[in-house]
Amino acid sequence: MSRAARTPAEDHPDLITLDDVRAAAGRVAGLAVRTPLLPCLWADQLWLKPESLQPVGSFKVRGAVNALSCLSEAERAAGVITHSSGNHGQALAYAGRELGVPVTVVMPDVAPEVKIRATRGYGAEVILVPPARRLSRTHELVAERGLTLVPPFDHPAVIAGQGTVGLEILADLADVATVLVPVGGGGLSSGVATVVRALAPQVSVVGVEPALAGDAADSLAAGELREWTNEQRYRTIADGLRTSLSPLTFAHLTARLDRIITVSEDEIRAAVRTLAYSGRLVVEPSGAVTVAGYLAHRDELPPGPAVAVLSGGNIAPELLIELLT
Amino acid sequence: MSRAARTPAEDHPDLITLDDVRAAAGRVAGLAVRTPLLPCLWADQLWLKPESLQPVGSFKVRGAVNALSCLSEAERAAGVITHSSGNHGQALAYAGRELGVPVTVVMPDVAPEVKIRATRGYGAEVILVPPARRLSRTHELVAERGLTLVPPFDHPAVIAGQGTVGLEILADLADVATVLVPVGGGGLSSGVATVVRALAPQVSVVGVEPALAGDAADSLAAGELREWTNEQRYRTIADGLRTSLSPLTFAHLTARLDRIITVSEDEIRAAVRTLAYSGRLVVEPSGAVTVAGYLAHRDELPPGPAVAVLSGGNIAPELLIELLT
Repeated sequence: MSRAARTPAEDHPDLITLDDVRAAAGRVAGLAVRTPLLPCLWADQLWLKPESLQPVGSFKVRGAVNALSCLSEAERAAGVITHSSGNHGQALAYAGRELGVPVTVVMPDVAPEVKIRATRGYGAEVILVPPARRLSRTHELVAERGLTLVPPFDHPAVIAGQGTVGLEILADLADVATVLVPVGGGGLSSGVATVVRALAPQVSVVGVEPALAGDAADSLAAGELREWTNEQRYRTIADGLRTSLSPLTFAHLTARLDRIITVSEDEIRAAVRTLAYSGRLVVEPSGAVTVAGYLAHRDELPPGPAVAVLSGGNIAPELLIELLT
Repeated sequence: MSRAARTPAEDHPDLITLDDVRAAAGRVAGLAVRTPLLPCLWADQLWLKPESLQPVGSFKVRGAVNALSCLSEAERAAGVITHSSGNHGQALAYAGRELGVPVTVVMPDVAPEVKIRATRGYGAEVILVPPARRLSRTHELVAERGLTLVPPFDHPAVIAGQGTVGLEILADLADVATVLVPVGGGGLSSGVATVVRALAPQVSVVGVEPALAGDAADSLAAGELREWTNEQRYRTIADGLRTSLSPLTFAHLTARLDRIITVSEDEIRAAVRTLAYSGRLVVEPSGAVTVAGYLAHRDELPPGPAVAVLSGGNIAPELLIELLT
């Protein structure tokens, strides 16, 4: 997809703006870590943005804090709900505790005990339901209890919060040429692309996706949202990137992302290993796809400094040991 | 050792000053990463200062850059030498490459191939000698080639460079009550204690040492430098902390450190594991002693926020896997 072919952002009324992200930056400053850019001595011209070091282990804390900060007093008092059992659910629980907003997380009753315990540990009420009932039960609870739904990515305030990653990258590396960002539901990539396109249009924002869950690449190439089945998307080890885009994130990425590249499972596994041994960081497979993409595709990327966003570090111990051995 | 019993720093003409560290901060800014403080959700009131994320994987880059920046033009042109085969040697090689100063590292011919290759990879000339010849050969080369010796810790400019860690901690966490810092040769702890005592005398600076290499604790308790044998010191897994204090670092710590605590090997191993799984950081045993000390001794520490300095992340893959399994 060439830049010229993109829909001008200004034409789409639902897209978030640079000002939305700047406002979010002020709100997340106290609760999200200002992560540094780490130069890599083991990969020429590569810097890492280790969002794996955020509280709760992922960038999701940014969007969660921003979404809660945008609520009215009445909404805050009533509380919020989400149906994410992964990093977003834990980040929302954490943000709610810090901001004094009650959080309910609806999780499938087959979720790993460690995730249930972690989410409760951050003070959220966890409601376990059969997997097929997750969405419907969430919407029932919204109606019954007057809760506000804070979805993992399909929400302007969440996207604006994630975009603060982009502001920090541009502030720390003025001559960056490429920003690599993982694409799952598209919240992080939509937010970062918004900032970079507005402030530094000469910089390429490149999404990275597992080839086995390449529905975003497929959708962007087709110019329309393409649905992949669960069976297809669940083949990848990168469990945070099995999600599909929403119409809102698809619109952002269509207008603002420069391109999307895909990586193999072997490339993802090798990147987790390299990040531990050479980068001294524990990163989950979803967080390592950007380094995998840089190492596999650097010849196709613009010359000059590149930043790989490491989105999260929540990896099961057994998998980490397997990838390190 | 009570604070009242310490020698006033002003009485000792060889001790570095706060101004020395402030000058160093300007010199290291471009080459050392401004590491963040990471709040720990898994340990109440604990923040991590991950110096393991520096280029070359340890705080040593700070002292190396400062020492090279303090050389005269003639000294820079002639080059520098050191006899450290560990983190300091690699940091000096890296700093030399970045600053255009030739670096020679004298290493024992029994050093692991991986360390030799890494040091050469940063552009240093590595000279291999029998272990017993290391110091004498270094001094011969100083004389023969007109090189300047940059030792790993026994040098005011090196200590001042390491002290920049302390400036950053105080800037980032105004209400810190305790700073925990590993003690090996004493360069890092001397620098950090200098800053904290000058700027925030109400904050405790606590050194942490493996009990099996507790020669600094022994020396500070005795009020004089106590030599431990190699056999004694080499029992600890924390290979970066097997070094003894020098008279210069002993003088700094006597005057400025609040106290020193020791940790067991099991506590160190558990801390490496906790840092990987809960902190999402790969830290070497020497870098993990501060977290080990906090978890084992928190009841004896002042109430309020504590910062644990994670000094480095260079751990052999086999050892990392062993500690994670």
